[in-house]
This record gives sequence, C-alpha cells and structure tokens, in this order.
Amino acid sequence: MIKVGIIGAGRIGKVHITSISTRVKDAVIKTVADPFLSDETAAWAKSMGVEHTTKDYKEIINDPEIQAVLICSSTDTHAPISVEAIKAGKHVFCEKPISHDVKAIQQVIDALKGTGLKYMVGFNRRFDHNFEAVQKAVAAGKIGKPEIIKITSRDPEPPSAEYVKVSGGMFLDMTIHDFDMVRYLSGAEVEEVYVQAANLVDPAIGEAGDVDTAVITMKMSNGAIAVIDNSRRAAYGYDQRAEVFGSDGMVAVTNDSESTAVISNKDGVTGEKPLFFFLQRYMDAYGKEVTEFIKAIVNNTDTPLGVEDGLKPVLIGLAAGKSLKEGRPVKISEVG
Amino acid sequence: MIKVGIIGAGRIGKVHITSISTRVKDAVIKTVADPFLSDETAAWAKSMGVEHTTKDYKEIINDPEIQAVLICSSTDTHAPISVEAIKAGKHVFCEKPISHDVKAIQQVIDALKGTGLKYMVGFNRRFDHNFEAVQKAVAAGKIGKPEIIKITSRDPEPPSAEYVKVSGGMFLDMTIHDFDMVRYLSGAEVEEVYVQAANLVDPAIGEAGDVDTAVITMKMSNGAIAVIDNSRRAAYGYDQRAEVFGSDGMVAVTNDSESTAVISNKDGVTGEKPLFFFLQRYMDAYGKEVTEFIKAIVNNTDTPLGVEDGLKPVLIGLAAGKSLKEGRPVKISEVG
Amino acid sequence: MIKVGIIGAGRIGKVHITSISTRVKDAVIKTVADPFLSDETAAWAKSMGVEHTTKDYKEIINDPEIQAVLICSSTDTHAPISVEAIKAGKHVFCEKPISHDVKAIQQVIDALKGTGLKYMVGFNRRFDHNFEAVQKAVAAGKIGKPEIIKITSRDPEPPSAEYVKVSGGMFLDMTIHDFDMVRYLSGAEVEEVYVQAANLVDPAIGEAGDVDTAVITMKMSNGAIAVIDNSRRAAYGYDQRAEVFGSDGMVAVTNDSESTAVISNKDGVTGEKPLFFFLQRYMDAYGKEVTEFIKAIVNNTDTPLGVEDGLKPVLIGLAAGKSLKEGRPVKISEVG
Amino acid sequence: MIKVGIIGAGRIGKVHITSISTRVKDAVIKTVADPFLSDETAAWAKSMGVEHTTKDYKEIINDPEIQAVLICSSTDTHAPISVEAIKAGKHVFCEKPISHDVKAIQQVIDALKGTGLKYMVGFNRRFDHNFEAVQKAVAAGKIGKPEIIKITSRDPEPPSAEYVKVSGGMFLDMTIHDFDMVRYLSGAEVEEVYVQAANLVDPAIGEAGDVDTAVITMKMSNGAIAVIDNSRRAAYGYDQRAEVFGSDGMVAVTNDSESTAVISNKDGVTGEKPLFFFLQRYMDAYGKEVTEFIKAIVNNTDTPLGVEDGLKPVLIGLAAGKSLKEGRPVKISEVG
Repeated sequence: MIKVGIIGAGRIGKVHITSISTRVKDAVIKTVADPFLSDETAAWAKSMGVEHTTKDYKEIINDPEIQAVLICSSTDTHAPISVEAIKAGKHVFCEKPISHDVKAIQQVIDALKGTGLKYMVGFNRRFDHNFEAVQKAVAAGKIGKPEIIKITSRDPEPPSAEYVKVSGGMFLDMTIHDFDMVRYLSGAEVEEVYVQAANLVDPAIGEAGDVDTAVITMKMSNGAIAVIDNSRRAAYGYDQRAEVFGSDGMVAVTNDSESTAVISNKDGVTGEKPLFFFLQRYMDAYGKEVTEFIKAIVNNTDTPLGVEDGLKPVLIGLAAGKSLKEGRPVKISEVG
Repeated sequence: MIKVGIIGAGRIGKVHITSISTRVKDAVIKTVADPFLSDETAAWAKSMGVEHTTKDYKEIINDPEIQAVLICSSTDTHAPISVEAIKAGKHVFCEKPISHDVKAIQQVIDALKGTGLKYMVGFNRRFDHNFEAVQKAVAAGKIGKPEIIKITSRDPEPPSAEYVKVSGGMFLDMTIHDFDMVRYLSGAEVEEVYVQAANLVDPAIGEAGDVDTAVITMKMSNGAIAVIDNSRRAAYGYDQRAEVFGSDGMVAVTNDSESTAVISNKDGVTGEKPLFFFLQRYMDAYGKEVTEFIKAIVNNTDTPLGVEDGLKPVLIGLAAGKSLKEGRPVKISEVG
Repeated sequence: MIKVGIIGAGRIGKVHITSISTRVKDAVIKTVADPFLSDETAAWAKSMGVEHTTKDYKEIINDPEIQAVLICSSTDTHAPISVEAIKAGKHVFCEKPISHDVKAIQQVIDALKGTGLKYMVGFNRRFDHNFEAVQKAVAAGKIGKPEIIKITSRDPEPPSAEYVKVSGGMFLDMTIHDFDMVRYLSGAEVEEVYVQAANLVDPAIGEAGDVDTAVITMKMSNGAIAVIDNSRRAAYGYDQRAEVFGSDGMVAVTNDSESTAVISNKDGVTGEKPLFFFLQRYMDAYGKEVTEFIKAIVNNTDTPLGVEDGLKPVLIGLAAGKSLKEGRPVKISEVG
Repeated sequence: MIKVGIIGAGRIGKVHITSISTRVKDAVIKTVADPFLSDETAAWAKSMGVEHTTKDYKEIINDPEIQAVLICSSTDTHAPISVEAIKAGKHVFCEKPISHDVKAIQQVIDALKGTGLKYMVGFNRRFDHNFEAVQKAVAAGKIGKPEIIKITSRDPEPPSAEYVKVSGGMFLDMTIHDFDMVRYLSGAEVEEVYVQAANLVDPAIGEAGDVDTAVITMKMSNGAIAVIDNSRRAAYGYDQRAEVFGSDGMVAVTNDSESTAVISNKDGVTGEKPLFFFLQRYMDAYGKEVTEFIKAIVNNTDTPLGVEDGLKPVLIGLAAGKSLKEGRPVKISEVG
C-alpha cells in the first residue's frame, strides 16, 4: 500500500481524493493539505477515508511515511513544490502545466536526475477511453502512416476574466491538453506551430489580453500536419473530438453523452448533448491516470507521462503565443 | 423501344409517367388512359412526352403497337384489366395488390398460362437502395442463417376513413408491402401468422371496421421468425426500417433523410426527420422497378416479381385478417 | 451506516460486494456467506473490506447487527431465505427471479405483511442509463401516449445445457428481465402474451427442453402492444435495445460500446461492437440498484421494485411458457 | 425552351448532357462540340436527344438559335471561349476555374459589362443537399454568429502526374471548390490564408512540383476562422464534410453512402463507405446547378454564382500558393 499525500483540495484535488478512495487499489491517502482548507472539506475528506487534513503542506513533505505526493495546488506552485517533494524523496504526480516558465520546469528535471523517483504529469485525456482507442488504432497501424491529425476542443463556457489573467493564456491553460494529445495520437513531435486566433466569445477575455477562439496548425516530425480548433464556449457542451487520417484510412472519435437515447418527433431526430464538462467526461480517466502513477511506483517502471511530457506541451504553447503575437509560423526550437 | 400504355393517371400513374419519361431508357409512353382524366393532367402528360391521352383504356388494350401495359387504376380493376391485357397479348405491370380476392388473382394466373407474356407486380420497395442492401447481405451469407426478421413500417399520417373502407383493410393495403418484404429479405415463405392489433390512431378508422396499429408475428418456412410493426401515423414521418438477425450477425437499415445535417445546440444534437412519405422515399425505387419490367421484356427473362409474388402477400394478408378476427395464429394453408 | 450480509458469493454476489465496497455510501458489508466459499474468494472479500466470511448463511440470519440481507444464492433458495430473513427482521434485496413458483412468492408476500420491512427484487436494468432515459422520456410525455413498445435482448453466447435445465426455461431466466422492462417502459401491465419461439442456436438447448430464439407479443393494459425479440446468441455481443413509439413520436436507445472510435478504410466504416455481456454493460446499474435499496432503508421509503414487481414478470413468464406449449395467446389471468 | 450548346464532351461535358436531357425542364441541347469527338460519343449524345454534334465549337458560337453555352473544355480555354461566347451574345455557364490567370478572368468581366448576359461558374457543391443544409442553417441564424468553419475534402485517389502538371496545382484544381465552400457557408470573404502542406501521397506529384496533403487556415471578413484539410487520397473514398461552429451551436454534415445498411458481426459494426467520387456524390448537384442557370435566363435574374464568384476562389488559391512558397500567411490583397 502506497501512502499518499495530496497538496491542494480544490476542484481537481477533490477529484483525486475521490478517485484514490474508490478506485485506486494500491494507494491510501494519509494527508490532504490546503492553505484554505474549510471544515466542510476536511470533514468530507475524512468521510472518504483520508487519515489527516492540514493547512500546511510541509506536513506532507516532512512525513517519512508518505511515499508519493499529488500536487494539485495553484499552477505557480507546481514546480517549486515538485522540487521540494523530490528533495524529500517522494514520488510526484503533478497537475498540468508544471509551470508557464521553462526554467522552472528545468529545475524539476534537474532535481529528478539520479533520484530514481517517479514523476508524472497529469494529462488526464490520455486515459480517456475514446482517445485511447484512437491512439491504439494508430499505433497498431490500422490507418497506415498518419498524415493529418485533427483535434476539436471546446469548453462549454468561458472562465472568468480573473481566472484568464493568471491562467498563462489559453494556449498554456486549455490548448496545452490538445498539444499533448497531438503528440500522443501522432506518435511524433511538434516542430512548428502557426496560430490564427481571435477574441469572439467574451470581450472581457480580450481585455485580459487573451484570445478565446483559435485554429492552430502544426508541422510534425513524421511529416504529418496537425490542426487543433479551440473555443472557450460551445452552446451544446464540452466538445472533445479527434480524428487521425492516414495512408490506409481514418480513425475518429466523437463525444460521450449521458445515454444513447434519441427522440424522433415533429421537430427532428434528437440525441443528447455531450457530457457537460471535464468532470463528467473525464472522471474515469482521472481514476485510470492515478492508477498508472501508483502502478509505476509499485512495479518500479516509468510513468506513462514523464517530466519531458510535461515540458514539451509548454514549449508548444509558448511557440503558439509567439506565433499569435508575431503573425507567423514559429519553430519550437525558437522557444526551447 | 417498347411502346407502353398506362391505365390510370392518379398519384401512382403519374409516378410511372415521370419515371418512364426521365429514367427508363428502352420505353416510351404511347398512351395514357384515365376515365377521370382532367385537361390539366392531359397537358402535363404531353409535356412529359406522352403521345396520346384518352378516357377510354380500351384504346390501349386494342392498340397493336402497344406491347406493354401498366395498370395503375383502382384496386378492384387490377385483375380484370390484367386478364384483358393478357388476352390482347400485352405484357403487364400491375400495381399492388392484384386483387383482394384470391379467385380473381387465380384468373390472372390462368390467363397467363402458355402465353409467354411478362407479368410483374409493383412491390416497389424491393428496388429501394436500403432494402436491396439488406437482401444482398443476407443472400451473400453475411449474417449466416437468418433467424429473426424485423420490419418497422409506419405511415406519417392516416388515410381518410373513406379510403379505409375500400382499401381492403390495413393488412391488404399497407402491410402487404411488409409481407412482401419479409419474403424478400428472408428468402423464405410465411407459414403462419399471428396478429395483435388495435385502433389507436383515429377512431374513424375503427368505425370503418379497421385497425391502425399492429404487431404481426410470422413463422417462416426456413425456421426463422418474422415480426412487423405497423402504425398508420408517425409524428416524425415515414418510418421504414428493417433488420435481419442471423447466426453470424445482423444487418439493419434505417430511414433516409433530406440531408445528413446535424445541429448541436442547447436543446440537443438534432438530425433531420425521415423523408416524409413514399413519394419522397421511394422515387428512385419506382424508376428502377419499371426499368426491370422493361428489361425483362427486352431480354425475354422473368420479371423479378411474378404473379405468384403478387398472390402470396395477399394470402398472408387474408390470414392476418383471420388471425385478428379469431384471436389465434392462422396458417397460410387455411386461407389458400 | 447499514450493516449488510450477502448470501451467495458467486458471480452476482461478487458484483454486489464490489459495488457496496466502492460505490454505496451508507452501507458496509459485515458478513458474506456461501456454502462453497473458497479461500480465494474469502481473501478477496476481506481485501474489499468485508469484516467476516462464512459457509453458513444462518450466521447472517442470526446476527442482530445485520439489518439488511442481499440474497444472491441459487434461484430455488431465493424465496425460502427471503422468508427466513424477513422473520429475522431483516430488510431483503433478492436477486431475480424470486421463484419459478408463484406459491413460493406468495409466501414471501405473506411474510412481509405488516412487518414494515423493505423488500427489493434485483431487476438491474431499470438502473441502466439508457433504459432510464427511455422511461423518463415516456413518463414525461415526450412521445405522447405509448402505442408500441419494442425490446431487443440477445445474449452474446448461450448458456450450457446444464444451466438451461435448472434455469426455469428462457422466459423465466432471460426474458424475465425484458418482461420487467416492458412494464417499466410502458407504465402499464401485461394482459396477454403470445409466443413464437424456436430452437435455432444450440441443439443441446432443445434437447434440454428449452427454446433459444423467440418473438413475444404482449397486449398491455393501456391498449399498447409490446414485442420482445430474444436470442441466446449474438455474434456481435450483448444486444440490449429498446424503442417506445407513441402518438407524438418515438424514443429509442441502442447499445453501449467501449469507445466511440470509428475506423474508415477500404472495408467500410466500422465502429466497435456492443459491450460484451451484462457485467460490462450493467456494472453501473448494479451499483445504482443497491444504492436505491439502501436509500429506501435509510429514508424509510418504498423500494423502487417491491415484491409485486418480482411476482408479475414471473406470471408473464409462466403465461409465455403456456403460450409456447399450446400455440395460442394466453391471458395472465390464466396463470395468476 | 432555351437552346443550349455544350463545348467539350469529356467527363464533365457528359455529366451536363445527361443532366439537361433528363432533369432540366426548360432547356434542350442543340449542339455538342468537341475537337476530339469520337463516333461513340456522338452516337451517345444523339441517343440523349442532342440534335447535332461537331468537332468545331465555332458552330455553336455562330449559331443564332443557341442562346446559352456550357463551357466544359480544358481549363486554359475557359476564359477565351467565355469572351467569344459573350461577344456572340450568348449566356455562359463556365466550368471551374475560369482561369488560373487573374487577367484572363478580368477580360471575361470586362466582356460582360453592359451586356445583360448571364454568367455562371460551375461550383457544383453549392447545390449538394448536404452543403445546402449547412448554408441554410447558418443563414437562418440557427448556430448564431459563425466563428469556426471547417471543411474536409479528400479525393479517393490521386490524379496522374501528367494531370497534376497542367492542373494549376492542388489549390487551383481541387481546393478551389473548398475555397468557394468557405465563402458559401460563412457568408463572408477570405482575407488572409496560411498553408501547411506536404507531398505524402505520391512522390510523382512532388516531382511534378505540387503537394497532395494540406491544412489551410483562413481569416474571414466577419472575424471567423476557417480551416480546410485536403488529401489527394482517402482509402475509404471521397470524403466531403463540413462543420460550422458559432455562438449558439454547430451544424455539421457528413458523407453520403449507397445505403444506410450496417452489418454487426464479430468484427464490429460496419456501415458503407462514402460514395466513391464526385460523379456519385454530386450527380444531383450537377442537375440542380444547370437548372439554376437556365432559370436565371428564363426569369432574367442573377445567376447564383456570378463571374466574381469565379474570380475570388482563384485569388484565394493564388494566395495559398504564395503562402506555401514563402512559408507565411498571405493576404488576398497581396495577389489581387
């Protein structure tokens, strides 16, 4: 049994508390730490089987019984806490992105060197049943050589302008998942990126210096072309689709919905909307993700998403930002 | 070039005039006859290339130039005009059903004997692209041995009570197409039929002595079981589906619609309704049907739907009526 | 916290042990009893948090701490153990069917009288997301007045002839779920049933005196007509669909699959097969089912599926058997 | 009745001969001209009702009875023959593209000035039932303000290198249809274009100086972003899809296939491939297109696709070529 500490008990921290309590066999949560921990959250955590709660994450860092730490705190703390935890000899699961700053990620890479500790970054979508099926089909050669990778990723509703301001911008906050997906589905690296983007959804996002609608084209190391389309708002809910086209065919996935029910009446033939947002769509994926992290510790294998997998999408995101600013295609090597 | 006469210029007569004028290569319409022929219809027929129009169908029967006759008049005249046309040495295409009366059909069979003339009955759905695809898959063994045949056949809106009174009842008027489809898709004969039916759509239909909703179960000569569900009204339009399940799998077809457009919005994910009714759904099938009739004449081969194929669904329909009346399964041999 | 005992640790017992351990909040399993309990199963049960295991179910009956019993033993013991548990003052969740024998079910009904104890029968499909969506649409009037209810229920592979011999026959073993579904989706009672059935899948099933392929037509108390088609084998996996057609439209559900992935290549456009069998398709439903049972105890409300809901599908199944034997429609009142 | 002359009796010329003969009410073909006219084609044309055939298109230009000309000859002759026909006082339907050369198109524009003659360019996809449904939904405001327009356009198999050499390149030959579609579906103009493209399908195409795989991003005059993905080869057939995403939802269309048949077996759930290529997919569209041209003449209204609609996609194609060459986004104004 791996004893785990969770730092950060916000939305995503609660997701992991729930997953580990109910679905992850070889792990128990010893401590949950959050500087703003409410009595309510503490009580809920205990009802989920958490042994101890605290406002001070150092209690986790300093606890020799805790072997693994999940970092679910605010983005700016991901890298420094990663380094602290590594120095304390703990395996680390870190929510995405590790940092908006490449140097900070480099410090994590340096800290890990020679430790033998496991590090995993939380790109949960790799554990989604649909995207896994696409990746497997591509990897098994079912569509031949990949040539065009298409990802649609649209949130149901935009975040607040306050959130946007500290988010690092759409590319590092939202598209970063899609950059990871492009790498995952194509089995190749992004070499160059070009962004066409606009502020169409909410003027407040534009005032906060960000965009909310984008089409991003990428040149891949295997010669394929990738394209992502993003919007911060979709009237019909969370839209998460992918298609990989290759020399022998195409594989595509569409959204999940609550049921397969279709009503035919005078107005048409109507099925359900996609599941509303990531908590609905990716709940299973979150459980599988942490299970993989714990397995890597137990079996002493690599995690499926190492620190380099955390770095690369950040580099693509930085190149995307530069492309938008300068109105031209940008090579990853320009920001690396 | 086969010279054709068309008897009856109502709804279905006009369908065939249009088909032959625009899609059937080896035929021209010399004469159209209808006792109630309006000036408007006559003018329209001429604009479609019809040489001559008349109120007297005998002009067709007696015209030695006319080799083939399409009988599109009222049901009670199908059998006697068939006999007349055969005696005049003409090939006959007859709209379904040949007659509600088995003896009248027998007279057609007797008239045909030894003549070498072609006879075809108009079960147009056999020429629909969807049902053809099912039949081909079954005949090619793609689902193994057929075990369950399911047909859904629902009209968008009920006929008038006046029509119902002279229609021969739902089984001989509407379900007769589905009885033919059961034979076509299964490659087997119906041996026994059981009806569960009700008057749920329009009380006037009940007052006219008929039902409008039915589920009909059939025992097939190859051991399979067939089931048809019928309604005289579907809020979403003409519902024409089929499914054949067998030892190695299943083949199913659904409805056609005007386009593949799907709108996703806050209300759901909505596609188009099925094509409204038979004129929309089966227009291509009507053209292919008559093409096959003309081909059989030109190539001196059997028509795909001979007079026996016209008789059998009538027998099933009569057995269905008896089953409804007596509340028990009825063998076809009981009415044959 | 409700302390629960589980009698029977076979396939379905294990499903409930897993569900209660991981998904049912207000219940803990104190004891699991099974006369054939292996060391392996006992160890697994303990790893799931079960306090105690035994070969003697009387330990559960006689334990005053245990408030609720789940009966997952062989069918012939369901009714007598139900009665024992009720007499011991315990709430009972009983797997389907309660008994093949109406008198035995009547004894359970008699035992319950005046006790205020909760009784629930395990028709798990009512808790499936797809069937729930159909039921909600019908109950909300979205399709108007129900007129035709259609259920397709096909297993991926037939049971052994040994199992068939003790199963009570296909109607009481397999179709019983569909009989419950007809009641659930239509909101009405079955009044009459007619069976067309055959032995097409496995001759050994026929030799065991049973059928494996059936189409069953039912007359409902609200005037609607219901039809079930069953097969003990489907080459493409577990086929569980439903459609309710009414005066204002239709609602239909299809199967779930592992992902939405579709591969287009030279062979066609191919999606995944349905989830293989009930353990895959209904795992969530099993969890929701027991949650409802525990909720009814905690909140002192009726269970969603009382003992009468256990009796009625058995009566329909008996009428179906009689219809098959006598080749005629049979009223439920004839067997009740 | 409009008397029509058709110049060019190759593949697309034959399409129009067939359409006009069988589907276009108010037109008859007087003359078909083709310098390479075979006896076989001439005989076929006569069987379709064409009065006269010739190798010399001047016979059409100089025939005062002929009111309208369809130019279906090789691309380099489109513009000069357009000018000749206009000078001879004839209405012109011209296959796409009018020319690869903007100056030649300008000469057509100049020739038309003040004549009152009708000119239409053959972007047939605007008359496809699926794309029409998307355009209508967008124009009716069903998805709100358009924000992202996505078009997938993939041919089943690449053209020969010989064809590629004279084709004007993929953007002017193939993508030009998609550029028109972007304008049609968005109701806006393209302002800037960026191309990411490669030679992945056939090395001979690369040797001929062209690409065969591309993702093209466009900035639209209404603030929306458009993206086209192209391939010269799709293993599963002709792939022609579109999606428009807007502030209130999304409308999408997929491919047509021969039937709706789906086979479920041990290998999966398999539907038919898309219709093989443009002759199958767009046959109806070709008929509707010419019908609209004839209607515009008869009713003296504008054609739905005037000469400016022929020019604009050429400009976008030229900008796309420049973007590919220079590796940067190119404004349409740079090539105009």
